[in-house]
Amino acid sequence: METRYFPGDALTAFGTTALTAAGLEHDAADLTSRSLVWSDLRGTHSHGLLRLPLYVTALRSGGINPRPVLRWTRESGATAVLDADGALGQVAMNAAVERVSRLARENGVGVVSVQNSTHYGAGIHWTHQLADAGFAALVTSTTGPTVTPHGGTETVLGTNPFTATAPSADETHLTADMATSAGAYGKVVAARNENRQIPTGWAVDAEGQPTTDPEAALGGALLPFGAAKGSALSVLIEALSASLTTAAFAHQTQDIWVEESSRMNTGHLVIALDTGAFTGRTHTESRVRHLQERVRSSSRTGTRVYAPGDIEHETARRAGEDVTLAASTVELLDALAEDLGLSPLSTCV
Amino acid sequence: METRYFPGDALTAFGTTALTAAGLEHDAADLTSRSLVWSDLRGTHSHGLLRLPLYVTALRSGGINPRPVLRWTRESGATAVLDADGALGQVAMNAAVERVSRLARENGVGVVSVQNSTHYGAGIHWTHQLADAGFAALVTSTTGPTVTPHGGTETVLGTNPFTATAPSADETHLTADMATSAGAYGKVVAARNENRQIPTGWAVDAEGQPTTDPEAALGGALLPFGAAKGSALSVLIEALSASLTTAAFAHQTQDIWVEESSRMNTGHLVIALDTGAFTGRTHTESRVRHLQERVRSSSRTGTRVYAPGDIEHETARRAGEDVTLAASTVELLDALAEDLGLSPLSTCV
Repeated sequence: METRYFPGDALTAFGTTALTAAGLEHDAADLTSRSLVWSDLRGTHSHGLLRLPLYVTALRSGGINPRPVLRWTRESGATAVLDADGALGQVAMNAAVERVSRLARENGVGVVSVQNSTHYGAGIHWTHQLADAGFAALVTSTTGPTVTPHGGTETVLGTNPFTATAPSADETHLTADMATSAGAYGKVVAARNENRQIPTGWAVDAEGQPTTDPEAALGGALLPFGAAKGSALSVLIEALSASLTTAAFAHQTQDIWVEESSRMNTGHLVIALDTGAFTGRTHTESRVRHLQERVRSSSRTGTRVYAPGDIEHETARRAGEDVTLAASTVELLDALAEDLGLSPLSTCV
Repeated sequence: METRYFPGDALTAFGTTALTAAGLEHDAADLTSRSLVWSDLRGTHSHGLLRLPLYVTALRSGGINPRPVLRWTRESGATAVLDADGALGQVAMNAAVERVSRLARENGVGVVSVQNSTHYGAGIHWTHQLADAGFAALVTSTTGPTVTPHGGTETVLGTNPFTATAPSADETHLTADMATSAGAYGKVVAARNENRQIPTGWAVDAEGQPTTDPEAALGGALLPFGAAKGSALSVLIEALSASLTTAAFAHQTQDIWVEESSRMNTGHLVIALDTGAFTGRTHTESRVRHLQERVRSSSRTGTRVYAPGDIEHETARRAGEDVTLAASTVELLDALAEDLGLSPLSTCV
């Protein structure tokens, strides 16, 4: 795959300028751009600037509200419900993380459920902020309808991502961050954009037949990972992300990737546990590091074993300040820049 | 497989008598026996009375403490830490569920972490109690060391079960209840006892080679379900179940199935969200039922699709008051009765 290198700061500035041109206020544009570039830096390009053109189009066509008025519709004990008024998911999550941190600090645990949100990028961006503050964190979300339950053929479920992070004294936190589909929807889109096939087992076509063609997969249904177990996990994430608010289930929405003006009413659930309220932050972080080290040394045959989150952390460490983008993504971003009357990204090499 | 039918009440009485003979107080014996028979009634025999002989042996040899003094070592806001003093997991969970219910009712969410516990049976037994009270619930646990991380060969992880339940207005709640190993440890033990092979993909032998022989699997390592994704989930469950307490990680324990006097210091995490603190119990339960119905109708080809938890609920409904046990389990229980000087189970048909 042909790639290009860019300074991270230049990419962030490009993203912020594009989002501001699409109507976002500067702070919202900046935090969103940072979250996307952070994913690119970690090699998670499916949740990086590849998303920017869609965000811009949706902001201009009403699928995402550029000037939302966030409203706390319920506050009770250690919990709160946020109506994000169609905001970008990053804007909603920024508010949710701040609130859940306060709730967890005061009560040992905090929970924020979110309705009327949209795509929040990579969940790990939010859980690592919570882990940096000493919280164990769990974040889930609904998405557009793309996945069929185990045994089904219809796209009843979203890719239903979840992120769980345990704070660690290691260089990086311990994090499981995944779509519960066999493959991420963004990776299927990336494969289509880059003319690559997708792995067997990721999807069925519109007739329910297995396919490795990303176009056919996007017209059919993705499959949950891990057969019946992964499917059960996915259904529960859908339930927990949408039933504690008035958020829509995936099957009740039209995907913004299909119709950019679709107001998806995405739901999120954010849970933060303050390690200080249990056996103490130092204790927990040291225990988690111990587990990471034991996982890494778990092969008798000398195979390299990664603790969850290690690969992305290493990618970011190797990258330093420079971010790699696929040439196809650069082309998309240059077209976006032209559309918005901005300088093309490819000039800032 | 040869089977026998028994009235549920008779089985419960048998279990209670056996556990009392092993040193448990009546109430503890009764709640434990009920939890096991409940699993058998639902067809989840791996977590049913099959476990009774081990419980009895461990209670007599010190692996499980028959007369524990449960102690709350930390109480802070909406959280609490329970030291179960080596109690049966059912005894620990009974206390944890009561406490987490109170915390959730008062704060919208409650969290109890547990250390010095043992095997708690099927997680769904506890989350359904919480769901019956209108709580969404999440329960996780460590276990003995049986699973190797994705890419590894050593049994660093437990089967790391988790149970997530969303309360529903349907006949049954929506529940994902699973070991994060490809197969449950108890099912591998059951397969060995019944001279059956285990499915491909469940395990590797001591040399790291794939095997379908349950004996070889018990001497090697189980595999996580869902490859890298399931493995990441498993590692996070291990971290969250053991690092918020002084509980042991799986690799720091000797499995009670291997050495019955092993005091495993099992850790659990219990989270309960009060639906009443969000958009209301009626709203949530009705939304969850809607999702269950949509999942069940998700096949265009007419294939029966089950919502998570449906199969076990149907088994229990069909069973009515009568519980089916494998003849091999009845033999084990009769041998146990003889050992304890009790009437054999097979006389109460």
